[in-house]
Amino acid sequence: MRLLALRNGQKALILYSQIWGTRMRTISTSFLPPIALDPSKQSPIYRQLYEWFRQAIVAGQLRPGQRVPSTRSLATELKVSRIPVCAAYEQLHAEGYLETVLRAGTRVANSIPDDTLNAIGTDSNSALRASSRRIQGRISRRVATMSERPETWLTSLVAFRVSLPALECFPTKVWSALVHRHLRRQTRQMMAYGEAAGHWPLREAIAEYLGAARAVRCEPFQVLITTGCQQGIHLAAQVLLDAGAHVWFEEPGYPGARQALRMAGAQIVPVPVDEEGLNVAEGIRRDRRARAAYITPSHQYPLGMTMSASRRMQLLNWAARSEAWIIEDDYDSEFRFGARPFPSLQGLDVSARVIYVGTFSKVMFPALRLGYVVVPRDLVKAFTTLRDASDQFSSTLYQVVMTDFIREGHFARHIRRMRILYMERRKALVEAIRNKLNGDLEVVGSEAGMHLVALLPHDANDVAISANAKEKGISVMPLASCYLKRCVRPGLILGYGGTDARQIDQGVRTLKTLL
Amino acid sequence: MRLLALRNGQKALILYSQIWGTRMRTISTSFLPPIALDPSKQSPIYRQLYEWFRQAIVAGQLRPGQRVPSTRSLATELKVSRIPVCAAYEQLHAEGYLETVLRAGTRVANSIPDDTLNAIGTDSNSALRASSRRIQGRISRRVATMSERPETWLTSLVAFRVSLPALECFPTKVWSALVHRHLRRQTRQMMAYGEAAGHWPLREAIAEYLGAARAVRCEPFQVLITTGCQQGIHLAAQVLLDAGAHVWFEEPGYPGARQALRMAGAQIVPVPVDEEGLNVAEGIRRDRRARAAYITPSHQYPLGMTMSASRRMQLLNWAARSEAWIIEDDYDSEFRFGARPFPSLQGLDVSARVIYVGTFSKVMFPALRLGYVVVPRDLVKAFTTLRDASDQFSSTLYQVVMTDFIREGHFARHIRRMRILYMERRKALVEAIRNKLNGDLEVVGSEAGMHLVALLPHDANDVAISANAKEKGISVMPLASCYLKRCVRPGLILGYGGTDARQIDQGVRTLKTLL
Repeated sequence: MRLLALRNGQKALILYSQIWGTRMRTISTSFLPPIALDPSKQSPIYRQLYEWFRQAIVAGQLRPGQRVPSTRSLATELKVSRIPVCAAYEQLHAEGYLETVLRAGTRVANSIPDDTLNAIGTDSNSALRASSRRIQGRISRRVATMSERPETWLTSLVAFRVSLPALECFPTKVWSALVHRHLRRQTRQMMAYGEAAGHWPLREAIAEYLGAARAVRCEPFQVLITTGCQQGIHLAAQVLLDAGAHVWFEEPGYPGARQALRMAGAQIVPVPVDEEGLNVAEGIRRDRRARAAYITPSHQYPLGMTMSASRRMQLLNWAARSEAWIIEDDYDSEFRFGARPFPSLQGLDVSARVIYVGTFSKVMFPALRLGYVVVPRDLVKAFTTLRDASDQFSSTLYQVVMTDFIREGHFARHIRRMRILYMERRKALVEAIRNKLNGDLEVVGSEAGMHLVALLPHDANDVAISANAKEKGISVMPLASCYLKRCVRPGLILGYGGTDARQIDQGVRTLKTLL
Repeated sequence: MRLLALRNGQKALILYSQIWGTRMRTISTSFLPPIALDPSKQSPIYRQLYEWFRQAIVAGQLRPGQRVPSTRSLATELKVSRIPVCAAYEQLHAEGYLETVLRAGTRVANSIPDDTLNAIGTDSNSALRASSRRIQGRISRRVATMSERPETWLTSLVAFRVSLPALECFPTKVWSALVHRHLRRQTRQMMAYGEAAGHWPLREAIAEYLGAARAVRCEPFQVLITTGCQQGIHLAAQVLLDAGAHVWFEEPGYPGARQALRMAGAQIVPVPVDEEGLNVAEGIRRDRRARAAYITPSHQYPLGMTMSASRRMQLLNWAARSEAWIIEDDYDSEFRFGARPFPSLQGLDVSARVIYVGTFSKVMFPALRLGYVVVPRDLVKAFTTLRDASDQFSSTLYQVVMTDFIREGHFARHIRRMRILYMERRKALVEAIRNKLNGDLEVVGSEAGMHLVALLPHDANDVAISANAKEKGISVMPLASCYLKRCVRPGLILGYGGTDARQIDQGVRTLKTLL
C-alpha cells in the first residue's frame, strides 16, 4: 500500500478501507481527501472513482458547491488514463452528484442538501446503536403483542416434534414423477401470474374432497387456495377483525393462531375447554359481544378432545344471533383412529358464519406450502383481495401437481396408509409411556391426529423439562406455552407423526431421565 | 323412487333431495319424518341414516328429548339389517346427538339447545341474503379501504401486459434439470418446516448479489426471503405501521403497494413526483410527521424516471431526522439500458431507516414466488416473527434450486440476455409508437425496466381506452389507476417485457384503432 498523502484523510481512509478492504493504493489529489485506488481489484478504475466520490459526498467530506479537479488534472495526478475519470464524472453527473457551471468548472451539486451531511454522516455504528434503543417506539404496536415462536417449533426433525408428518413414508417417487411431468412441458401460463383465489381445478378437487370426507358444504368458488392453515387464519383475521376486536380463543389453544389474530390487532379472550371442547356458555358469560371465535372442533389443539354436538350447536347459535364469525381450524382431521371422523362444523352452519381452514402440510408435507380456506360466498371477494394484497398467489406448479395427486387417487391412498401408521405410532407411544413412565405422565385426548398431551404431576415444571429435553435431543412442547393465562396443569405435547418406533422407544427413555 | 309415506315430510324430502340428489328410496317410520335411503348410492346405509338424523336434529325436525325408535324397530320398518342402524346410532351417540335414558329408551339429547333450532333452522338462502345485506358492517374496516385489482392485472398473457417477463426466453431446461436434481434426492429436511427467514445459502447468495449489483450494504442475516415484492411491502407495513399512520406515497404510484399499506390501516399521503422523482420538499410541506415513505427510486412506477441524488439525500435526511422509515421498492432495477444502473438508496443510508424490497418475479418468473427484503439489523426479529405469523415460510425446493441457479452463474447470464432483449423490445415499441401513433402518444421515462408510459392528449379518457383495449385483446393499464387523487394527465402503461416483436407491431396497430 503506497500512501501519497494523508491530508485530513485518516477518516476517509478508514471509511474507505471498510468498503474496499485493505489491499489498495491510496492517492490524494491537491483538492481532495485521499483517493484510494486498487488496480488489483475486480472493480474497474472508473467504478472505484465513482464510488469514492459518491461516498465522500454522502459522508460530507466533499461539500455542496466545492470544486472538484478537472478530469485531465485528476487523471494526471492519479496516473491513470483520462477515460475512466471521464466515465466516473459522467455517471456522477447523471446521478446529480456533480454539476458543471459555465466557466467555473465542475463542482459538487449545490442541490445536495447541506444538513443531510451532518445528519447522516455520523459513524454508522453509533447511529445504529442509538436507533436500536429507540426502535420499539417506532414500530407498530402489533409487533409488541406478538411473541417469538419457541425454538422447538422450528426446523428440527428430532423425536416428538409436533406437526411433523412421517416424511419418510411420503410417496416421493410418485410425486417427483408428477412434478417432472408438468415441469418438462411448463407453459407460459404456468410461469406467469396466477389467480389470487387459486388454480381452479384444484379448488374443484378440494371442494369435492371436503364434501365427501368432512361434510363441508360449499361450491368450488368458495374454496380459496392458501399456503397453509397459518395463512388461512391470517387472512380470516385481516378480513373479519378490526384492531381491538375481541375473539374467543380456546384455553389452552394453538399459539400460531394467536399470533395471526394479534397481528390483526385482535384482543384474545381465553375461553376454557373441557371434555366437550370450548365451553360456549362460559364464553358468553365472559364476552357475549366478541366478534369471532377461533376453534379446533375436530381435534382440539393441544388437548385432543372432540367438540360435542351440543356445544357445536350452541356455538353456531351464538354466532348466528350475534353475527359473530367462527374460524374453524381443521388442521389434522384426516387422522382419526377409533370412531368415524366427526364431520366439520362448517357443514352444520346454515347462517354462513363459519370460515373453514385446512392444510396439506400434515397430510402431504409442510414445505409444499399449500392449504385452503372455505369461506361464505359473500366473503369470497374480500378474502381474494386481501390474499392479493398480502402475497398475490400460491406457486402454480405445486397447485397443478396437487390436483393430479388428488384426481389420480394418490391422495386418498396416502391418507389411508398414514392413518394406519399414525394409529400404530400413537399406540406405541401410549404403551411406552404406560410401561416406562407410569404415574409420571397421564395421556389425555381422543385417538386422533399426530400428537398427544401427557399431563405431568401438578408440581412439575413443564417449561424446564422442555428446555432440558431440547439439550438431550428431543422436542417436547410445554403445555404452558398454549395457555394465555395461568396453566391449569403442567404437561408435555408429544408429536408422534414424524417419530418412528425406534425414536419413540429411545425418546421415552430420555424422557424418563428428565422427570 | 318409492314413497312409503309423506306425513309432514314434504319439507324434509325437499331438504333431503338437495343433499342426496333425486334417485332415492323414501321411507318413513311411525315416529319420524320420512327417511330417504338410496341403496344405489356409494354412501353406505349406516352413513345415510346417520346423515339423515343429524340433519333432522339440526333442522329442528327432531326436537330435544324426542324419542327415536329402537334400532330393532327402525331396521324392521326400513327393511334393512340391524347392523347399519346400530352403527348410525352409535355414531350419533358418540357425537352427542342422541342419548339413552335408563328404561326410557333412546332420544334426542336434551343438551341440544332448543333455540338453536329456530335460529339456524331457517331456509338457508334467505339467511344468506339477509347476512349479505349486513355483511359490510361486520367485516374489518380495512377491507372497505381496499379496491379490487383491475382485471387486466390478472393472469392474461396478451400484448402489453405489465410486469410480465419474456417467459418464452427463460432457460426452462436448465431450471428443470436443477429442480429434478433436488427433487430426486429430496431429504426429510427439505420436506419439513423451514425457517421463516428463509434458506440460509440463498440469503447469502442474495446478499452477495445485491452488494455487487445494487450497492446494497447488508449482512446475509438481514436478507429475509419472501414470496415477492408484494409480501415484502406487506410485511414492512405490518411491522412498521399502526392503523392510522401516515405514509408518503408517490403520486402516481404502484397500486399494489397501496393495497398492502391500507391492509395495515395506513393513511396514504400522496406526494407528487416530477422528473427527479418524489418531491421531498412537497412531502415535508404536506405531512412532516409521516411515519414512512414508499418509493421506487431506481425506476419510478409507473412514470419511469430515476430519483436524483439530491432528492435521495433529502429523503434520507428527513427519515433520519424524523425517525421515519423508507420502503424502497427496487422491483425491476436489473434492467437499465442506457446509463449504468443507479445504486440503491439503501446503500446510501447510514441511519438504518431503509427497508429494501426486491423480487425474482421479473428476472425469473412470477409463479416462482420468491423475493427478498433487506431490513435494518434491529428489525430482523420483528420481520421474521410477522412472516411466521402470516404464512410461516417459503417453499423450500425452489429456494434450494434458486441458490444453485445463482451460484452456477445462470442467473447473471439470464439477466444479461434479458437486458438486451428488453432494450430491443423497448426500442421496437417506442419506434412503433413514433411511426404509427405520432402525436397521439408521448413516451416518457428513462430507458429501463419492462414497461413504459405513453401520455395521451389531455382530453383523452385512458380508463375507457383501457376497457376497449381489453375487448380487442390487448392489455393497457390506464395511468389514472395509479393516481389516488385527480389524474394530472391521461396515459397508458404498456408492458413490453413479455410482448414480442410481432405482438408489439399488432398491438400498436390495435391501439391506433382505439385512439
